[in-house]
Order: sequence, then C-alpha cells, then structure tokens
Amino acid sequence: MDVDTGTTAFMLCCIIGLTLMIPGLALFYGGMVSVKSSTNMMMMTFGACAIVGVLWVLFGFSLTFGTSYGGFLGSITEFAGMKDLLESNTTIAGLPITLFALFQALFAAITVALISGAVADRMKFGAWMVFAAVWAVLVYFPVAHWVFAFDGVVTEDSVGGWIANKLAAIDFAGGTAVHINAGAAALAVAIVLGKSAGWGQLRKPHNVPLTLLGAGLLWAGWYAFNGGSALAAGNSASIVMVTTFVATCAAVLAWIAVEKIKDGHVTGVGAASGAITGLVAITPACGSVTPVGAIILGAIAGAVCVYAVGLKERFGYDDSLDVVGVHLVGGVVGTLLIGFLASESMPNGINGLFYGGGFDQLWRQAVAAGAVMIYSFVVAGIIALAIKMTMGIRISPDEEEKGIDATFHREASYELQPA
Amino acid sequence: MDVDTGTTAFMLCCIIGLTLMIPGLALFYGGMVSVKSSTNMMMMTFGACAIVGVLWVLFGFSLTFGTSYGGFLGSITEFAGMKDLLESNTTIAGLPITLFALFQALFAAITVALISGAVADRMKFGAWMVFAAVWAVLVYFPVAHWVFAFDGVVTEDSVGGWIANKLAAIDFAGGTAVHINAGAAALAVAIVLGKSAGWGQLRKPHNVPLTLLGAGLLWAGWYAFNGGSALAAGNSASIVMVTTFVATCAAVLAWIAVEKIKDGHVTGVGAASGAITGLVAITPACGSVTPVGAIILGAIAGAVCVYAVGLKERFGYDDSLDVVGVHLVGGVVGTLLIGFLASESMPNGINGLFYGGGFDQLWRQAVAAGAVMIYSFVVAGIIALAIKMTMGIRISPDEEEKGIDATFHREASYELQPA
Amino acid sequence: MDVDTGTTAFMLCCIIGLTLMIPGLALFYGGMVSVKSSTNMMMMTFGACAIVGVLWVLFGFSLTFGTSYGGFLGSITEFAGMKDLLESNTTIAGLPITLFALFQALFAAITVALISGAVADRMKFGAWMVFAAVWAVLVYFPVAHWVFAFDGVVTEDSVGGWIANKLAAIDFAGGTAVHINAGAAALAVAIVLGKSAGWGQLRKPHNVPLTLLGAGLLWAGWYAFNGGSALAAGNSASIVMVTTFVATCAAVLAWIAVEKIKDGHVTGVGAASGAITGLVAITPACGSVTPVGAIILGAIAGAVCVYAVGLKERFGYDDSLDVVGVHLVGGVVGTLLIGFLASESMPNGINGLFYGGGFDQLWRQAVAAGAVMIYSFVVAGIIALAIKMTMGIRISPDEEEKGIDATFHREASYELQPA
Repeated sequence: MDVDTGTTAFMLCCIIGLTLMIPGLALFYGGMVSVKSSTNMMMMTFGACAIVGVLWVLFGFSLTFGTSYGGFLGSITEFAGMKDLLESNTTIAGLPITLFALFQALFAAITVALISGAVADRMKFGAWMVFAAVWAVLVYFPVAHWVFAFDGVVTEDSVGGWIANKLAAIDFAGGTAVHINAGAAALAVAIVLGKSAGWGQLRKPHNVPLTLLGAGLLWAGWYAFNGGSALAAGNSASIVMVTTFVATCAAVLAWIAVEKIKDGHVTGVGAASGAITGLVAITPACGSVTPVGAIILGAIAGAVCVYAVGLKERFGYDDSLDVVGVHLVGGVVGTLLIGFLASESMPNGINGLFYGGGFDQLWRQAVAAGAVMIYSFVVAGIIALAIKMTMGIRISPDEEEKGIDATFHREASYELQPA
Repeated sequence: MDVDTGTTAFMLCCIIGLTLMIPGLALFYGGMVSVKSSTNMMMMTFGACAIVGVLWVLFGFSLTFGTSYGGFLGSITEFAGMKDLLESNTTIAGLPITLFALFQALFAAITVALISGAVADRMKFGAWMVFAAVWAVLVYFPVAHWVFAFDGVVTEDSVGGWIANKLAAIDFAGGTAVHINAGAAALAVAIVLGKSAGWGQLRKPHNVPLTLLGAGLLWAGWYAFNGGSALAAGNSASIVMVTTFVATCAAVLAWIAVEKIKDGHVTGVGAASGAITGLVAITPACGSVTPVGAIILGAIAGAVCVYAVGLKERFGYDDSLDVVGVHLVGGVVGTLLIGFLASESMPNGINGLFYGGGFDQLWRQAVAAGAVMIYSFVVAGIIALAIKMTMGIRISPDEEEKGIDATFHREASYELQPA
Repeated sequence: MDVDTGTTAFMLCCIIGLTLMIPGLALFYGGMVSVKSSTNMMMMTFGACAIVGVLWVLFGFSLTFGTSYGGFLGSITEFAGMKDLLESNTTIAGLPITLFALFQALFAAITVALISGAVADRMKFGAWMVFAAVWAVLVYFPVAHWVFAFDGVVTEDSVGGWIANKLAAIDFAGGTAVHINAGAAALAVAIVLGKSAGWGQLRKPHNVPLTLLGAGLLWAGWYAFNGGSALAAGNSASIVMVTTFVATCAAVLAWIAVEKIKDGHVTGVGAASGAITGLVAITPACGSVTPVGAIILGAIAGAVCVYAVGLKERFGYDDSLDVVGVHLVGGVVGTLLIGFLASESMPNGINGLFYGGGFDQLWRQAVAAGAVMIYSFVVAGIIALAIKMTMGIRISPDEEEKGIDATFHREASYELQPA
C-alpha cells in the first residue's frame, strides 16, 4: 500500500511525543528521590533509553517482530541493523514500516527505564546499565513479541506472538508488555537489592515541581503511546485519546480524594501519581471501554493504587518510587477491568462481563497478565542475582550515606549558593 | 464525509500540544508564587483540569455543543457521556467529531485553570475545586457555546451560540471565551477573597526558570490552541501559526523594552509575561491579521499590559499573578484590535477599520468582549460569595503565614538539604 | 499542487516541536551556568528568538529564500512582510509555502540562540540583543540561503544558494548552516569578550536537572528539525527520525563511556552533552547514513567531543558552555563523516568513501564546512568588535562579581527561603 501521509504524519509526531516521556520519566522519578541521588536517578532513564535504543536497531526489532519461533521469539537476523527494512518501502496500512520500528523502539526504551524507580539511591550505575541491556534482550523483546507482534503485521505471512494471536487477550498499548512487565521486574530487583539505608523513614521528595512537571510531560507523551498504537490517524486513535484523557482525570481525582480521607491531606506527589496510575490502567483498555467506562476504570485504579503503594511497607520490599504499586498493580487493574468493562461499540469490538460478554475475555486477560508477570519477575530476578554475584549490584553503605551523586557521579544536582 | 487522515493527524497531535499546556501553566504560575505555596499553585492547575475533564465527558460537551436553547446553552442530554458520539463516526469536514470534542475538552480545562493565578497563597484547595467545577458548568460551558458553537458544526442542522452566529464577532481561538472569560472571573474571585497577607510587598517569584519553562511550554502548546482552531491541516492553520509565532516575538520585545524604560531593568518574569500576553492577544485575531499586523498587535499588547499589571495596586484588588492584567486586558486588546487591523486577505476574510472596513466589525468585537466580561464577572462573583458563605473560601491567617503547602498539603516543594 | 493534508499536518506539528527547543535550549544552557547568571542565560535564548522572529517576517525570509543574487543572498523585497506569500496559496509538493517559511523561521531563531552559550556571565544583555539581530542579518540569512535555498524551492524558477545547488554538499538539516555557523560565531565572540572572572576554576552547573530536562526537550524537538527537513510525511522523514534517534543514543553511550575512562566518573552534564552532540552530528547526515551508520557516527561524535570541550583550556578561549566543542566540532564531524559513511540506499542517494563513492562527496563536504566556518567566524568577530567599540560588550568586573542577574536584571532566579 502507498504511504498515507496523514497516518505517517501522526506517527512521526508520536515520536516527538514519546521522546518527551524520556525527560518526563527522568523528572517524575528524579523529583521524588533525595537530593543526594537525583542526578543518578535521572541518568538511569537517559542511560537505559540510550542502550536499549542501540540494541533495538542492532537486533531488538528483529527479535520482537521477526518471524516467530513458535510464538515465543522472533528471528534475530531477519531485520538485523534495520537496513533492509528502510529499503523495503513497505507499509502497514499506509504507515512506513521503518516508522513503526521506531515507534516500538521508544516503547522498549521507556519500559526498561520504568524499572529504575525501584532501585533509587543504592544500585551501582554500571550494574543498572548492564541490567537494562540484559533485561531488554531476555525479557522485553520476547514479551513485546508475545503481545505486540500480530500475525502479518510486518510482512504479510509473518507469524507473531502467542498472546496477541492465540490467547487473544486485549492489550491496546502495553498494560501487560509495558507496565506489568516493568512492575514485576521492579519487584524482583528491589528484593535482590535489599532495602535502602533510609528504609522506614518517610521518603520526602526533594523537588515536587519536577515530579509534577514530569507527570505532565508523561501525560502529554502518553497520547502518542496509546493513540499511536492505533497505527492510523482515524476514529480509533481519536477514541483512544478520549479514554486516555478522561481516565487520567478521574484517577487524579480518585487518588487525591482517597488520600484526603486516608491521610487527611492532599499532596503534589499524590496528584502526579494519580495521573500516572490512570494512564497506566487505561493503557491496555483505551480501545475497549467507553468514555464513561474510562472514568470508572480510572477512578478504580486511582483509589486502589493509593493503597497498593502501601504494600511495600507491609511486605517489606523497598520499591523506592512505587513502580510495583503504580505500574504493576495499575497494569493488572486495567488489564483485568477490560474483562468487565469492555464495550463492543469501541474499537476492540469486545463485550466484557458487565456488557453481556461473559467470562471469556476475563480469563484471557488474567492469563496474559499472569504469564507476563511471572516471566518478568523470574527472569529479572535471575539477571539481578547474576549481576550481584559477579560485578556487584549495590553501592557501599558509605557511598549510600554520602549519596551516589557525590560519590559516583561527582556532581551535585544543585549549586544554589553563589561562589 | 470520510475521515481526512491529515487533518485527523494534526488534531490528534494538537491534543499532545494542548496537554503540554497543563504542566506549562502549572509551572508558569508555580514559579511566580512564594516557595510556601508553590505545590498548591501547581495542584490548582492539575486539579481543575481533572475535574473539568470528567464533567466535560459527562455533560459539558453536550451543554456546549448540543442543540441550542435560543443561542444561550446547548442540550444537556444530547451528547451526555459522549458514547453515541463515538459510535456516530461523523466528521466535521473530515475531522472525527470525537476528536473535536476532546480538543474542546482541553480548552475548557485550561480556561478554568487560568483563573487560579488570581487566588495564590490564600484560597482553600477544596473551595478552589468546587469553584472550578461550578464555574465550568455555569460560565465556561455556556460562554463557549455562545462563541464556539457555530450553526451546523456538530450535526448538520444544529443551532449554535449567539456570538458566533448572530453577532458574528471574530474570535478565532478564544480571546473572549477563554481569556476575557477567565480574566473577568479572576477579578471577581480576587475581590471576594480579599488581599493576601503579603499585599503591598513586592511579590518575588520563587523560581524564575520554572516560570520561563512554563511560558515556553505554553508557547509550544498554544500553536495547537490557535492552529487547531482551524480544524483542518491546511493554509488557514499555517497562516494562524505564523501570526501566533510573530505576535509572541513582538510582545516579548515590547514588554522588555517598556519594562526597561519604565523600571530600568529587564526581568525573566517580564519576558515570560510578554510571551503570554502576545499569545493571549493574538488568540482571537490569529486568523484575521497579516504577519505585519500580528507584529503590531503583539507589540501593542505587550506594551499595554506592562502597565495593566499595575492596575491592581491602583485599584486595590489582589490579582496575585496578573490574570487580569494579562488575560483580561490582553484578551480585550486582541479582540478589539481585530476591528482595526483585520485584513480581508486573511482566513477570516474581514477588513477592519484601518483596511476600509468601517466600524462594523469593531462594535461586534466590543459587544462580544463586553458580554463575556460582564457575565463571567457577575456569575463568578456570585459563585465565590456562595462558597464563602457556606464552606468558606479562605485559609486562616495562621495557615497563610505558615504557607498552604505546609499546613494543608503537608508537603514542602523542595527538600534540598540532604538528610 | 493542492495542499497535502498529511504533510501539512506533520509540518504544523513540527512547529510545536521546534518551539519546545526554545525552553529546551534555555534550560540546557541555564542549568549549566552559575546561579548568579541563570536568568540572564535563559533570557538570552528567549530574547534572541523574539528579535530574530520579527526580523524573519519583515525581511529575513525574503533575504534567505528570495531570488538569489549570484547564489549569495536573496532579494530583500520579494517576500518582505510575508503577506503576498500568504495570499499565494502555493505549495512545495503539497506543503503551504507559509508553513515552510515558519519552519525556517524557527531554524533562524534557534541558531542565533545557540551562540549565547559562549558568552555566559559577562556579556551585556543589550549588546547580546544587538549582536543577535545583526548576526542574523549579516550571517544567518546569507548562509541559510547558501545551504537551504534549493533552486526552485519557493517559486518554480527561483535561483538559490551556491552550496545547495552548485557545490552540492549534503546538509540535510543544518550541520553547516546551523551548527558550524553558530559554533564558529561563538568562538569569535568568546575571543572578543575575553575570559570570564571565573576562568580556570571548574564551572559547576547550578542545576543539573534543568540541563537534563533541556537536553530532553531539545531531543524531542530535534525530530521536527531533522524529520521536518524532509518537507513531507513519508519514508524519508521516517528514516531520518530513525537515524536521529539512534545516533543520539550512541553518542550518549560514547560520551559517558569516554568520560568514565578519562575522568573516572560519569556526569549528568556529560549525558546531556552527549545527547546534544549526537543530535548535532547526525543533523547533516540524517538522510544519508544507515541506522548502523548512524550508530557509528553518533559514537564517534560523542567520543571526539568529550575531548573537544577541553580545547578551550588548551587554547585559552572562554567558550563558557562549549558551543565550539559541541556544535562546531560536532557539526564538522557530522558533515565530514557523510563523505565516508553515506549510503546510496538512503534518501540522499549518495555513496561515501567507505561505500565506494570515492572522494567526490568528501571534498564537497569539506568545502561547505570550511566556507561557513570562515565566513561566520570573521563576520561574527567584526560585529562583536564593532559592538565592543561602540556600546560596549562586557559588563563591569563588579557586576560580574555580583552576578548579572542581580545587577542588571534585578531578579534572583530562586527565592527558596520563605519570607
């Protein structure tokens, strides 16, 4: 098919939007940590995106979208280096395949970077870079293949991943492959790393405006994430953007309302976390729930996750910035609620339990969520343990006390006193 | 008409741009207030956008673009919940109606958030959220109906608002419905609230880089605001972006030049305010003045508003961050200058006084500006008074002294000393 | 040709992206300087963009894209005021000429602003504004004419600039006209200004998160810069975005790897500088190297520039924020590497030395780079000297000691202690 300039324009601009998520995530996390490790926190996002971007071009796209080995992994050589892809001039319904590959590159980069929120203050930067690279190869590329590689998407007769094609779970833009995946990995690494020195004290964000700004940039970029997953500039993308918008609004309100009731006050970090929670939860569901369904879904996710971020104290894992509470739990909530709230009139064309669709979609959603969670948790844990036993994964207590910015990066985030 | 993928692509991306205005506005305002209330300031933007977003989907779009009751308000039930809208697959000249609804949702959200600049440091957060919701329903939805609901825009035989269709005032992207509207409401609430404890002292911005960044994000997003109002990816939108760009440039230069002459120095907040003033003033006029006309309009607005922000000292209302001086005055300047500077060769196709068009357009502009100003001021004042007399509108002097971030939100914006 | 709504949508959104580079650059630079001059630093970007934007509309576009006088400069009157342009409704292969003019306006504005990184802490703000205006007219407009005015681009029989048409050097998006140009001017002004008071001491960035955020916004906006230079929403733009993305990733990795080896640690400013270096180097080459070629090019540029930023200590010019080391050297590296790494299969359709293309392209690249460098350096030096001898170019030692924010702008960037 010829290039559709409208769809291509949309997806080109989605690249700009997705790239805003890089500083967005860096700030969202960076503002929440201590001033002693804020540069480190931001660099984990930039570093992970850089390494994953290079791997993606070299062989990641091929592993994810190449001809499938039994639905579990694509061919590593088929699109290696992406050069043949550029020359092919083929399109996915008018979208240049090159541009689809770049769109997916940013999904990979951002997913890996999400994990860094669990390891604040205490993970060696080199260990993080190695973890990011290995986890991308062993976990993200395969799981993205399971979920995003629809049969025939890249080449007409290509065979894709098992979740997309066999199980037929609905995951519009990555509730499983992105958020459950990153959240489960975060849990594993947080456990292997152990608790930070400050565990038990209230973690005070060092810069709330940066966190709110980060949330705002993520919100803006997320439209590219979800809307772009329609792969066409049309009605579906428009509907997806509506549900993405309003679920986020509802989640912000739900989070701050529950926070007010539970803690007696309303915080900036709460508003930011509410927004991200809504965005996470609507990600798989943005093409299957109505606008009012999106309000319900967002409100549920916001309310549930206020409590979910408290699980770490209860179970004693130091998920520093609540990657588990927001991305894993929010991703599971969104993925499962599709089974209840999906409406046939929306782009995915499926009815959930509440719309007379029975349990059929619900169990598919549960299997997809469970499979990704277990695979990611187990393999992430093994990678983290392997790093721990070889190069070491954690900075020394002394370095942690003084702060990783000062000891490793030799750079303070701020020099606010004139020399 | 079938979906035009190009126009749809443009408008989808405008949603990304408009969403950047949420953190943009939060930072623009948040940087200008005291460090004691900066988190509160930012949260007023996020909170207002969240509540208005939900209301818009539930019934706001319907009130604004539903079949008109006499040109004053749309039907509340016609598009309630927006679900039928999604299913209709109708377009406005190739633009999915759903996407138009989302585009307008962000106009509503941002307009309400603009008002918060007048109530810094001293308004109860709960009172703000209630005000935002009620003002959206009683003022924004009707006024947007007057100005933006052109006959036939949503359905072929729909009847719209009186300013757009009967009066035929020109307001390309919201000089009246957005800026005069928000500015007049800001004046009313500021008066009802009374002066803040720090009144009379120079308000020092706590973080100028955030304010400049906020202005930059608003500038970027404003192209979506103004250009997107063309509702098509074509010549009109292109021209609108040119006038939007250059009016802003001229206003920055005018503001800092006048500031230099008047005060002897040039400030970062001045440059930021100049940019916003230019953007406000060109908003109604971006489709009716030439590029050189836009330079003149921007320069006039910038120069006038340097003085307009001083009106509050003269008249004794505490419009904390100059919503009146920038949005109300800038909006009036832009709306009226159309009557002088409009050129027939531009998309609106009307000549102003200086181009031989006589006084015809000028009085229409004045009536539109006046009607919106009076309605918004009166109703906003009533809402604020009602809140004051019921739940209370202002925090206690003690809370104001200690700062609303510490007393209500229990969260300091910054923790820059390592623990 | 009729307007292509897809291509127009893309380019409209590129304006949003390019405008993000204004706060992006302001923050990237603003975060790196001392807290005593950070507002000044940011205002140099905003001020330069404002003055250049106005000049562009008045006559800059005409000088750059009007009918050429011998390939050296366009007609100053042909498109003065841009009004006739708006009315013409002509397109460049479906792209409204007005929108092309605005796209190029932002190139001009950003290029001038880039220079400000060399004059931190010590240049009079008025002198900077004059320099920005004069350099735009005497250097940017002519050089952009040489490089970007292809024969026939605006009107069918228009004659353009000598580098684009006669020399046929490849510069996809401004390696010469933007980065070498700004970098060479920066060197000249830095020399005329002399060293800042703090020369010899380590320059500590006052706010690393702002610098990283600035780099992130620049990265996002740069896709509009490079991708938009394809002037169409299609395969070429898609390929350009892939090379832009991955060269940046590779440069980040190369910079921090070399920094680690050389200095023993890895910094946030290093990661940010690496990203910008990759973006600079890929700018001319984004349409001529393969994705793997882009990785190589980005890695070389990143590694080279870690050393290039040390040249100022060796040669004793105070290029405060490394405009020379990043933009001049990065621009030269990218421009020359095209001669080696270009692949015929990419949009530019040329083979470099390593692909069997011989030395033909390489010498063309070298001539273009050299011509722009020498012209810009000489004329920028003359302008700076003329300013120095008339209005004065440098603030007094006392003002520099107290900081230009306090003495000239009378505004501290931060007021973090509650009053």
